[in-house]
Amino acid sequence: MPFRIEATSGRARAGTITTDHGEVPTPAFMPVGTVGSVKNIESRELKQLGANISLSNAYHLYLRPGLDTLHKMGGLHKFMAWDRPILVDSGGFQVFSLADLRKVKEEGVTFRSHIDGSAHLFTPEKVIEIQRTIGPDFVMPLDELVGWPAERQAADDAAQRTWRWLQRGLEAFEKSEPLYGHKQILLPIVQGSFYDDLRVREAERLASLNAEAYAIGGLAVGEETGLTRKALDIVTPILPEDRPRYAMGVGTPSDILDAIGRGVDMFDCVVPTRNGRRATLFTFNGRLNMKNAKHATDDSPVEEGCPCPCCSQYSRAYLRHLYVAGEFLAMKLGSAHNLSFYFRMMAEARRQIEAGTFEGWAKVMIPRFGAPEVVEA
Amino acid sequence: MPFRIEATSGRARAGTITTDHGEVPTPAFMPVGTVGSVKNIESRELKQLGANISLSNAYHLYLRPGLDTLHKMGGLHKFMAWDRPILVDSGGFQVFSLADLRKVKEEGVTFRSHIDGSAHLFTPEKVIEIQRTIGPDFVMPLDELVGWPAERQAADDAAQRTWRWLQRGLEAFEKSEPLYGHKQILLPIVQGSFYDDLRVREAERLASLNAEAYAIGGLAVGEETGLTRKALDIVTPILPEDRPRYAMGVGTPSDILDAIGRGVDMFDCVVPTRNGRRATLFTFNGRLNMKNAKHATDDSPVEEGCPCPCCSQYSRAYLRHLYVAGEFLAMKLGSAHNLSFYFRMMAEARRQIEAGTFEGWAKVMIPRFGAPEVVEA
Repeated sequence: MPFRIEATSGRARAGTITTDHGEVPTPAFMPVGTVGSVKNIESRELKQLGANISLSNAYHLYLRPGLDTLHKMGGLHKFMAWDRPILVDSGGFQVFSLADLRKVKEEGVTFRSHIDGSAHLFTPEKVIEIQRTIGPDFVMPLDELVGWPAERQAADDAAQRTWRWLQRGLEAFEKSEPLYGHKQILLPIVQGSFYDDLRVREAERLASLNAEAYAIGGLAVGEETGLTRKALDIVTPILPEDRPRYAMGVGTPSDILDAIGRGVDMFDCVVPTRNGRRATLFTFNGRLNMKNAKHATDDSPVEEGCPCPCCSQYSRAYLRHLYVAGEFLAMKLGSAHNLSFYFRMMAEARRQIEAGTFEGWAKVMIPRFGAPEVVEA
Repeated sequence: MPFRIEATSGRARAGTITTDHGEVPTPAFMPVGTVGSVKNIESRELKQLGANISLSNAYHLYLRPGLDTLHKMGGLHKFMAWDRPILVDSGGFQVFSLADLRKVKEEGVTFRSHIDGSAHLFTPEKVIEIQRTIGPDFVMPLDELVGWPAERQAADDAAQRTWRWLQRGLEAFEKSEPLYGHKQILLPIVQGSFYDDLRVREAERLASLNAEAYAIGGLAVGEETGLTRKALDIVTPILPEDRPRYAMGVGTPSDILDAIGRGVDMFDCVVPTRNGRRATLFTFNGRLNMKNAKHATDDSPVEEGCPCPCCSQYSRAYLRHLYVAGEFLAMKLGSAHNLSFYFRMMAEARRQIEAGTFEGWAKVMIPRFGAPEVVEA
């Protein structure tokens, strides 16, 4: 079994996922390295910041550098000099959000590259082949997702197709082998939009597969927070207790802490790096807008005790100056700090679960990040 | 005496400059951190790469973050978390190249900020006051420079004015004190464009001042290499033998090695960082265009044995992928490698001088970087 639950606090779980690239303590946050690089952060910096697993994207890697290059270079781990686990998203989301002229048929989805307009077809089988070549530890099948709001019929159709595509993906997965000597695990994706009965149906039939881990998709597509929470409340109790659960694209610190409390174990989101590039920084006291004039002569670090390259070297005053002057280094320092915060937040969540105090702690923390205004330390 | 010559090889010198922020072995390259940040590189990374001194710019720092902030933050060293020496350029060059509506009068130069259009006046005295507030170890006086080609009369007028401004700057410098407890040294700047008799006149009268170090200005303004070399050949023999000589804005690896051979000790240039951002990388074997398709599956590092974050982690194939995909990390890795190369080149130049073999070595090295085409390793 690749997953061991070590403690619970309410519905929150602390565990360990075992892979051929090492162990991942959960709850775990996966930083997003879309094209095989977490923006502005070196692989060894990512380790130092506390990442135990990272995420990349099959759609992007398939288009560039391409499968031939990745295969010749010995797979993504070797290519990006990262020896910890990797999860690769199938690219379904990118096909639906980035590509041009996409057309969904039962066979698969045709689209044109957002880079050069070239025509491509992703089938459930092709997506497995792509991920065998990329070589992540965790493989995602091709799914069809709908945004929100979505008509019930469209949501149902997409969920049904996702189920049929999963059968084909699983068959292709079972008939193929890993290329680089380490085990790969496929995560079925629960779709169903925000229709409760669809979520129940999908969660139940996926649970029956007894997969090694599960993903919950179709979240973080613009819905109200209440809908995300309800979907998680419906799905997580149906999924097998002893398998890790990954909420795709979730999210902000508040959303992650909330979802941990609803039994989710794995997360990914561009929020820490994207916000870091745009001068919004997270601390345990809330959010900071680092361009704010109040920081202009503030000699203190962004967050006391934070071991990141920003807080361990520089003052808020200096970081503000870099953002205001448009210096590249600001994007790096802000991204590194936010990632450090995310990893420290996950570690603290784990400690709170082990102590059985997660619920009370999360109740205090969540509002600090939820306010639309910048909350100052 | 702040400068000790330890070895010579032909006219090349190996020495040590002593400052209150530590020793600088020469020949020395000063990476350019215009606004108090070498683009994409953290202060501690800059140290690890081998920088013993860095350069910033008074024009930029005066406009942003401004003198009040720098004073409140305890000066530039503390602000940018850099405890090694700093040289700050007066900003004369930036006033002449960046600012709008500049007007040179005997009093000084009026201009409008390139950031917000605000009106400012730089006088020789003001520039000293600015640099007392910024707090570098090495201070540059306000000078007037002409581009190239330049009329003889214009070059003469600018050189004469630079001399008169120097007197005023020196007086202001002597009447003021460092603000942060460390010694500051002012470097007179030899102007005279590419008119030999003007260069002789300026070098002679500056030499008579017996300053602690000298700068040679008006170089790297678009002239042919032959003119730069002749200007250095005229000026360096006139300047006091036992004082460091700084060729402002020089340059490419070839130009630096050539100038070392003509008796220059200190250099600064944006070439390593700017080229690093644009995928042109330097190695001891020549230049590389890292976007070239030939690197697409090349598993070797940019340069064998290079200790930089790029070469110690990544392959050429990965770096090429990052450049082609437009990833921020490429700019950082390329800049770090080029800076590492520059510092290793300076260290090797020093070893060659100590061994008395500099001339022959430089003769082999210089053509490797001089060709307009990319020279592959």
